[in-house]
Amino acid sequence: MTLPTSDARPIGIFDSGVGGLTVLRTLARRFPQESFIYLGDTARVPYGTKSPRTVERYTLQVADHLQRHGVKGVVAACNTASALGLGALRAHQPKLPVQGVIVPGCRSALNVTQTGRVGVIGTRATISSGAYRTTLNLLNPTIEVSDIACPLFVPLAEEGWTHHAATEMIVRETLTPLLDSDIDTLILGCTHYPVLKEVIQKVMGEGVMLVDSAEAVADELEQRLSDTILPNHSGAERTILYLVTDEAARFASVARRFLEEIPLEQVEMVDL
Amino acid sequence: MTLPTSDARPIGIFDSGVGGLTVLRTLARRFPQESFIYLGDTARVPYGTKSPRTVERYTLQVADHLQRHGVKGVVAACNTASALGLGALRAHQPKLPVQGVIVPGCRSALNVTQTGRVGVIGTRATISSGAYRTTLNLLNPTIEVSDIACPLFVPLAEEGWTHHAATEMIVRETLTPLLDSDIDTLILGCTHYPVLKEVIQKVMGEGVMLVDSAEAVADELEQRLSDTILPNHSGAERTILYLVTDEAARFASVARRFLEEIPLEQVEMVDL
Repeated sequence: MTLPTSDARPIGIFDSGVGGLTVLRTLARRFPQESFIYLGDTARVPYGTKSPRTVERYTLQVADHLQRHGVKGVVAACNTASALGLGALRAHQPKLPVQGVIVPGCRSALNVTQTGRVGVIGTRATISSGAYRTTLNLLNPTIEVSDIACPLFVPLAEEGWTHHAATEMIVRETLTPLLDSDIDTLILGCTHYPVLKEVIQKVMGEGVMLVDSAEAVADELEQRLSDTILPNHSGAERTILYLVTDEAARFASVARRFLEEIPLEQVEMVDL
Repeated sequence: MTLPTSDARPIGIFDSGVGGLTVLRTLARRFPQESFIYLGDTARVPYGTKSPRTVERYTLQVADHLQRHGVKGVVAACNTASALGLGALRAHQPKLPVQGVIVPGCRSALNVTQTGRVGVIGTRATISSGAYRTTLNLLNPTIEVSDIACPLFVPLAEEGWTHHAATEMIVRETLTPLLDSDIDTLILGCTHYPVLKEVIQKVMGEGVMLVDSAEAVADELEQRLSDTILPNHSGAERTILYLVTDEAARFASVARRFLEEIPLEQVEMVDL
């Protein structure tokens, strides 16, 4: 008897909305043979303002739905769900390989920092959970972590106020405590924040490296595909299916900007 | 046989979050003999960024839940739900007296305007629906309506950036088209906006009257209570029950600020 060496089932990726498409884009480029199902919980976005119990409940519902689509593993591309939902998800579906964005983001930051002083920004729910702080300190107990919740960054990013004086004012005022903490590395702990990268870099100064976890997540998945999940060597053309909980048409128009050359063909609305 | 003249059942009020508490406060003061059930759909807030179909679905779920609690009528204290959900709700539950905030707000504005040029601000969903524009023109076809969506006002209000230079900058830039339209009355078409009243007034100038619909809703309900709904003359002490879809403790801490002297005793979490 030979063990199977290929698994053509898709990889599930989810986020509260469109932000996780940057993670999908990175993974779709890196793994051209893999099929993906992206689930954006666009009716219930944002997760970052909600309570731990609600985020946990939503995470389980989303993962159950992906599993009904026959995924071979799940990537939580949402920082809030990664921080608050994955413990419950692993307990609920112990056989499903699950990967979040927090551990890869922390590893990436630890590779980059010279001084050992790392900053983290995220939604209120992500920062309150302490998930980044705990993970950084587990990986390296000598790291000094400064974290801060940035609740206005998601609406500013979603509404496209990326290059406006008011945005710079809000970013500067929100990040002031980090400026005093003398960090050399800053983790963008929310998939929405990369679109505000320029203004965040301007406020923090050139001496601070910004860490966006999409690439780190791809590295981690590469490891997984040679480890617990089997890659797809079937040779069949890969598919990408998009599922949303709010209107599909609205999602499609925004998603194209995030996806760049990655195709957006099948978008279906589902009710969770 | 004598007809009943009193109905001790509570009146249901709902909003996507805490904003509708300003309506509850006004109604609770004006009708001290009436019991209320407030339902804040705090897990799925905001409604104003969602599609018509999703807002409609949420409105029906919320009203069904209130009806299971035995309400004698429902007030939609959410402008987005009033704009997009009430048609479906009336079709779904034709016997349930239902009142929105849009008609009362429009009546109020028409009483105030001298020039017949009225502005409306609201969420993207409310403005896109055209509900204010249609209602104003039904009530008075000669009225000139200028409306504009203000998607950043809700997060600014929720995060407490009510007196900040960045907020004034965003309010000014968003409202610029209204400044050019020479209105004398502006409807605050979202229950969150009254907390930004000062900066909106500053930007619009003293010549523009701001209309907040909470008082107008109370006038309309007074009419209803002598008309389709029976008032409560039982003499029993009234109760106010609060239902939320996200964490009750978090709601309670914010709600106290909105409710002023109105008591907040029973808060229960429900799953819709």
